[in-house]
Amino acid sequence: MLSRLAKRSIMSVSGSLKPKFDKVFGKVDELKPQFIETLGKAVAIPAVSGDESLRPMVVKKAHFLVEELQRLGFSDVQLKQLGTQPPPVEDQKLQLPPVVLSRYGNDPNKKTLLVYGHYDVQPAQLSDGWETEPFKLYVDEDKQLMRARGSTDDTGPLLCWLNVVQAHKESGVELPVNLITCFEGMEESGSIGLEGLIAEETDKYFKGVDAVCISDNYWLGTRKPVLTYGLRGCNYYQTTVEGPGADLHSGIFGGVIAEPMVDLFQVMNSLVDAKGKILIDGVNEMVAPLTEKESKLYDNIDFDVDDLNSASGSKTSFYDNPKDILMHRWRYPSLSLHGIEGAFSGQGAKTVIPAKVHGKFSIRTVPDMDSDKLNKLVSDHCDKAFKKLGSPNKCKTELIHDGNYWVSDPHNASFTAAAKATKVVYGVDPDFTREGGSIPITVSFQELLKTTVMLLPVGRGDDGAHSINEKLDISNFINGMKTMAAYLHFYAESPEK
Amino acid sequence: MLSRLAKRSIMSVSGSLKPKFDKVFGKVDELKPQFIETLGKAVAIPAVSGDESLRPMVVKKAHFLVEELQRLGFSDVQLKQLGTQPPPVEDQKLQLPPVVLSRYGNDPNKKTLLVYGHYDVQPAQLSDGWETEPFKLYVDEDKQLMRARGSTDDTGPLLCWLNVVQAHKESGVELPVNLITCFEGMEESGSIGLEGLIAEETDKYFKGVDAVCISDNYWLGTRKPVLTYGLRGCNYYQTTVEGPGADLHSGIFGGVIAEPMVDLFQVMNSLVDAKGKILIDGVNEMVAPLTEKESKLYDNIDFDVDDLNSASGSKTSFYDNPKDILMHRWRYPSLSLHGIEGAFSGQGAKTVIPAKVHGKFSIRTVPDMDSDKLNKLVSDHCDKAFKKLGSPNKCKTELIHDGNYWVSDPHNASFTAAAKATKVVYGVDPDFTREGGSIPITVSFQELLKTTVMLLPVGRGDDGAHSINEKLDISNFINGMKTMAAYLHFYAESPEK
Repeated sequence: MLSRLAKRSIMSVSGSLKPKFDKVFGKVDELKPQFIETLGKAVAIPAVSGDESLRPMVVKKAHFLVEELQRLGFSDVQLKQLGTQPPPVEDQKLQLPPVVLSRYGNDPNKKTLLVYGHYDVQPAQLSDGWETEPFKLYVDEDKQLMRARGSTDDTGPLLCWLNVVQAHKESGVELPVNLITCFEGMEESGSIGLEGLIAEETDKYFKGVDAVCISDNYWLGTRKPVLTYGLRGCNYYQTTVEGPGADLHSGIFGGVIAEPMVDLFQVMNSLVDAKGKILIDGVNEMVAPLTEKESKLYDNIDFDVDDLNSASGSKTSFYDNPKDILMHRWRYPSLSLHGIEGAFSGQGAKTVIPAKVHGKFSIRTVPDMDSDKLNKLVSDHCDKAFKKLGSPNKCKTELIHDGNYWVSDPHNASFTAAAKATKVVYGVDPDFTREGGSIPITVSFQELLKTTVMLLPVGRGDDGAHSINEKLDISNFINGMKTMAAYLHFYAESPEK
Repeated sequence: MLSRLAKRSIMSVSGSLKPKFDKVFGKVDELKPQFIETLGKAVAIPAVSGDESLRPMVVKKAHFLVEELQRLGFSDVQLKQLGTQPPPVEDQKLQLPPVVLSRYGNDPNKKTLLVYGHYDVQPAQLSDGWETEPFKLYVDEDKQLMRARGSTDDTGPLLCWLNVVQAHKESGVELPVNLITCFEGMEESGSIGLEGLIAEETDKYFKGVDAVCISDNYWLGTRKPVLTYGLRGCNYYQTTVEGPGADLHSGIFGGVIAEPMVDLFQVMNSLVDAKGKILIDGVNEMVAPLTEKESKLYDNIDFDVDDLNSASGSKTSFYDNPKDILMHRWRYPSLSLHGIEGAFSGQGAKTVIPAKVHGKFSIRTVPDMDSDKLNKLVSDHCDKAFKKLGSPNKCKTELIHDGNYWVSDPHNASFTAAAKATKVVYGVDPDFTREGGSIPITVSFQELLKTTVMLLPVGRGDDGAHSINEKLDISNFINGMKTMAAYLHFYAESPEK
């Protein structure tokens, strides 16, 4: 049905693009068996960045990409080395996987698009519960899906860009933009070294980039394509309460000394209520007011409460309608209590009074929260809550790390082009979504390259990235390439950058 | 100085006992080098009950005791086997260390005293920070102390009983009571199997026991001898809150679902305030009122706030006077928060929303708290606190284990005899102390044998049991034996049982 929709939509495309789309889309369909075969070769390399012993496999996959890029005529293909991996590592000399840079086209009259993807993957073992070998692509003809680790996260989408170039080449349609690839091999392990590389290449390899497109997220659900224009940030804190010189026996000291755990519970309990409301003065006031225009963006998004319940494996939502759920996931801050370091955390019973405990919590940030101001509000709140106790212990609250939120204008040239492309391929307008989580590299690209970034997902919300039986539907794979191809043309045509 | 005091005191002892004490005490002094030598042989066996690989050493120490008992003329010496150690163990067939039973005397006209001690010890390694080899007795002539693992806990005090018998024998003074020894080898690992043995031997080996004396605790401080007449009990609880089907990502679900951690913090935070006050309705009401008579027991105890501060390594006491500190350690309940199982407990940052968390806390119990009633109050309180949240999660509170408090009458025949003995040896009245912790076997002896129990400590509060550089002062060793000896005579003389 989607394929029929796509054919019908092309009819409405402006005169000059229609024949190009016909040729490129036709070639994509024609090359489908080859694209699937190449994906099979790529996912067969167990490029698990989190497993030191598999580091040679990650490097092997980088070389596989280099060969593919060279075969397709990409130029200036480089493996950027990022040096040794910082501790904690077992092998002190462990080299970080290289970043694969390459270009296709270098025409000063064309716009330049940087596409980001990652070739490393999450760990996977058949014994985790996979139906088939995780590092062997299994094509399920009945369900029309491809199952393998990396199929959707992110080897499949990464290869889509290469396939788009191949389809242009073989159909004789000129690529309407200059393309730069930035494929990293450490995304599943914190993108170590990538931000430094971007900073270093801003005025070198990445000079002249007009827009960045990242294909490394998913549709919200399983039915409707989306474009993603926002991510929440994350400020992670640690509150430390310390008193006694060492852990004490609760028989001897219980009831006599002020216990750091009791103080920590009091402080952490003052941060958020059981309805999810953040209780720190001044935090909610920093949140950008909801405009009517923004509110409307949430009205027709294809999502319902059952989707949330099925994802959480429970019926524990605060909200009973999709709009409230999505707004609280995307555009409102949240505060989560993650755990305590230094207290008893094992099974069974231990009668310890922990001497020094670190409570861990984080706040998901949104526009227009200022990170520095937030840190001060949090620290002041905790200090005040602790002071109120009149405790003889010591308490301090620190930021462990922060990553800024990201929100783009979903009406800019890049998004508009991608929306048109989606409509052409899928026959429907995409939902404009945000995500509750963070992809720090998005902010890095935007801030360092001073350009717009768009997230253009290929796979669906049920693809099982990071889980067992990860898959990519063949229709998403094929339509993803077509959407990318059409996006390049619409973006090239756009008068704006 | 103590020795001069002791000599002077003997002058005031009633006529018939004085010559006996002179002889026995003289023999104890004479045999000092031999007693130290024997202690050296005993502590050289690394009888660490918590280390499976050292189990043969624990058994070896039991056999060492058997030889000593036989050498001294104890009769009916038995090694009671307790079967295999229950899981968790590496060696599924690991045998529990035997309990060493023996008798000295079997005269129906004499009272029968059961003395308890343990021959196993805590782990110790030179690299932990010991000044000398932990399993080699080091006699510090300057400080007049003996350093070794087990010197004070509990090999030294255990051997005191054997030495007392030897001193009587060699000085030609008849032992005034029948003695039964019960020496276990599993005390440092939960006394597994001992309660069962006591139950089994109540009407057999232990038939006719009039009183039990346990020498396995310490003076409150370093200057004044004490007799211990009470221990707090301990009821250990676990509150479990569960919601999602699995741990969730706080980016995606933060602010949208009710987090089990937030609910657990709310519930646990409602249990106790930062001043140590238990907030569970009905709990404080169960505590026996403080009578004027009891209050006076706390008036002259040799203890000050510095002792507490030095033990806790901090100045974090709720109270600024010894009486309040001791009453809150000994005669009031306390509630401690120990930790959380199932939450993030590592270093650094993890953005998890834990799906199922178990909060651990315990209440130290005192007279007249009823354990069953307490369990119900705790469970009801937690249920109510959780219900108030209106959370969609599930919450339940369970007892993990309980152990009853123990309080004896410090004016009974056994305590009165030991107080007289202390006065004779040390020249001062002992302090009557309780302890904040629990020694469950005390309650087992009292309840199963239906007799009185007394704790008669030998060592000082700074002996470092369970710590590095464990020691026993030579004066405590020698005066401990003399006190035990005198106690036997005063107890034998007492018209009561």
